[in-house]
Order: sequence, then structure tokens, then C-alpha cells
Amino acid sequence: MHVVVNAAMSVDGKLSSRRREQIAISGPDDFDRVDQLRADSDAVMVGVGTILADDPSLTVDDADRRAARAERGDPENPARVIADSRIRTPPDATVLDGRAQTYLLVSEAAPPDFIEEMEDAGAYVIAAGQDRVDLTTTLAKLEGDGIDQLMVEGGGELIFGLLEEALVDELFVYVGPKVIGGRDAPTLADGDGFIEDFPEPELADVERVDDGVVLHWQF
Amino acid sequence: MHVVVNAAMSVDGKLSSRRREQIAISGPDDFDRVDQLRADSDAVMVGVGTILADDPSLTVDDADRRAARAERGDPENPARVIADSRIRTPPDATVLDGRAQTYLLVSEAAPPDFIEEMEDAGAYVIAAGQDRVDLTTTLAKLEGDGIDQLMVEGGGELIFGLLEEALVDELFVYVGPKVIGGRDAPTLADGDGFIEDFPEPELADVERVDDGVVLHWQF
Repeated sequence: MHVVVNAAMSVDGKLSSRRREQIAISGPDDFDRVDQLRADSDAVMVGVGTILADDPSLTVDDADRRAARAERGDPENPARVIADSRIRTPPDATVLDGRAQTYLLVSEAAPPDFIEEMEDAGAYVIAAGQDRVDLTTTLAKLEGDGIDQLMVEGGGELIFGLLEEALVDELFVYVGPKVIGGRDAPTLADGDGFIEDFPEPELADVERVDDGVVLHWQF
Repeated sequence: MHVVVNAAMSVDGKLSSRRREQIAISGPDDFDRVDQLRADSDAVMVGVGTILADDPSLTVDDADRRAARAERGDPENPARVIADSRIRTPPDATVLDGRAQTYLLVSEAAPPDFIEEMEDAGAYVIAAGQDRVDLTTTLAKLEGDGIDQLMVEGGGELIFGLLEEALVDELFVYVGPKVIGGRDAPTLADGDGFIEDFPEPELADVERVDDGVVLHWQF
């Protein structure tokens, strides 16, 4: 499986303010770049925090891109994958609208009635890990289901979890012309953080897009 | 007064790990760029957190640059400025070694015996602000003392404080090839953070340096 993380952060590395409201960091050209990345993926993954904060659809916006996917025998939209250790996904989340297959990754501590509720809402539930989602195991299961190209759109807890397990192959970071600040604001990589053996990606490319810049890191 | 902030951050916007230990993020070419910036400044400023974590000298490393300063009638090293609201500067800090003039910015709540101790250690103390250093007032006093070009080297609390008061003219951010992660790790701009009216600098320049990139933002 090839894992590509994409995120937009402020000048100071934040995904949002301390209020965790959605903040426009990028512009139309970057939106288009991200839509192409989605269209090139078998699945698009986010953490449940992103579902709760933004309720995204995670579908491909451009109709031509959806048509091109259908033409080559793929579903119009990539599958959606939600990492939800603490089982907080609401059954009326937009990702459960049926426009694409949706996987819910949970820990083995997820109560059976929650799993049943999610399955009733149309999700395909994969459980692994004692209290937290075991990302290595669940991603291997997704790969067994034909997901070779996985795009991850955040948030910072999920991105850190993937980096911790050395599961990230590429990272695209759009750095936009806004300062958010805040010691409690979510950043590109949260979690406990590394204290040694810091991952050291290579800067493969730097491209100015909209009023910011896309940094392309390879692990 | 012209205020230039310079800092090196990880891929994910961190200045250090949650342990606040110094982490090498940049390389020799960036070190040289920063040394030139220091040599071009009348004073170099940091927050007391940086003093406690790194005990830096804040002097110009390159002898030719110091000689060039002396030749044009300036002190060999720029002045040093420490913002220390909570009066934590130790009297044996390297910035009090006499190699350059050192200003200590404190709040009006700073006890007289602390001020006396710092003055005995060679510092010039400026007090303004009730419980926190009033940056606008103290920087104006520095300007009255002939400091027109001020370089700020962090940390994230001071940088946010300056941004909050709209005192920053330029921001150079070296983004280095390391992921640090951590929701409690210090970032480029900490403090309470903005929740609206986010500062929107312009991306003036993008330059690859060492194995990272320098983003030059103008406010």
C-alpha cells in the first residue's frame, strides 16, 4: 500500500485554531490539486476528529474526474476510511451518505451495539487494537480489500499515529498565508510526539500554489 | 523599528520536542544565513524560555562579520534583549557574559531585588506592563535607545506576543527535514492563538537551503 498524506497548515504549522473550527488556509488551485489527489486514490482517510469538526464528504468534486474513474472501472468516488478509536462517529455523518464505500476502523474495545449501528448506517467496520485502532493491522486489511493507494487528509492525531508506525510514504503540506497561533491549536502532527529517532523525510519538491507553497516530502 | 523574526521549525511546525530540548533542524548554510541576519541587526531578542532551554550567546559567530560591524562604528555584537515577564533569567546566563549589551524586559510586577540582581549582573532592565511585558512600550523604549533593526529568534510564546501586537514586519521560517510531532511540543507561534482576524502575511520568497526550505513572509 502507498500512503500519501495531504494537509494544509498555517505559517506556524496549525490545521485550525484552538476552537477547531474550519479555517480557509488554501485557495482554488490547491483545492484542485487536492481533488486530483483524491481522484487518484483508492480511498481517502481521516480521523474522527475531522468528521466531528468539519463533517466532510471526502468525495471527488470534479465531474470529469469522477467520469474518468468510472471509465476505468473504478467507483466514481474513492472509498472513505474513518479512524475512530473512541467510537464518536455520528450515524448521520456525511461520510455515511452512501456516495462511496465507507470503512470505519475501530479498536477491539468498540461496543457491539455501536458496531451494529454503524453497519446499519452502511459502514464496513474493521476492528483491531486493544484501546486504540491498530493502524498497521487495519491498513493491511484495507490493502487486502484492494486499497493500494491511500490518501490521508488529517487530522494531526491520525497523521502522527501513521508516522509513528512508519506507514507514511509521501507528505504534501500546503503552507498558507495565515498565522493561527495557539499552544492548544491542532498541528500537522499531534499525538505524544517524538523525543528521539525523528522521522527525516526528503524534500522532493517545492511549488508555489495560490498565495502559499506546497512542500512535498518523501519518507 | 523594523522587526524581523527568524526561526527554524520541523515539517509540522515545531521548534522543539515536548521535552523542549534543542533539536538540530537546520544545517550549515542556514546557520550562516542566520549569522548574517544577526550581524545586520542592532539587537537580537529571545524569550526567557529560550534562555532556560538553550542558554544561547546570541552573538555573531563569524569573525569577519564582527570586524565589519566594528569598522562601521557598531559594537562587535548586536545588543541582546530578553523578554522575561515571569523573571526567570538566571544571573549566570550566557547572555549576561558582557560580550554585548543586554536588555532585560520585565513587567512592573518584577520585584526590586530581582531587578537589582540583574543590574548587578550587567543587564539594563526595562519595565512595562502589569503582569506581562508590554511589548509595544518596551520596544519603543529600545528604539529610543537606537535599536532600529531588531531580530527575534523565538520562542513561540514571544513570537505570538509580537504578532498579537502587530509588531512583526518580516518572518523567515526555515522548514527542516524532520518531523517532531506532539500536541504539547512548542510551535512557531504559541500563546493563546488567534480565533479571528488571523494575520495574513505575503509570501515574498521561497528558497531551498540545506535539506529544507526558507519561507520569507512579509506583514
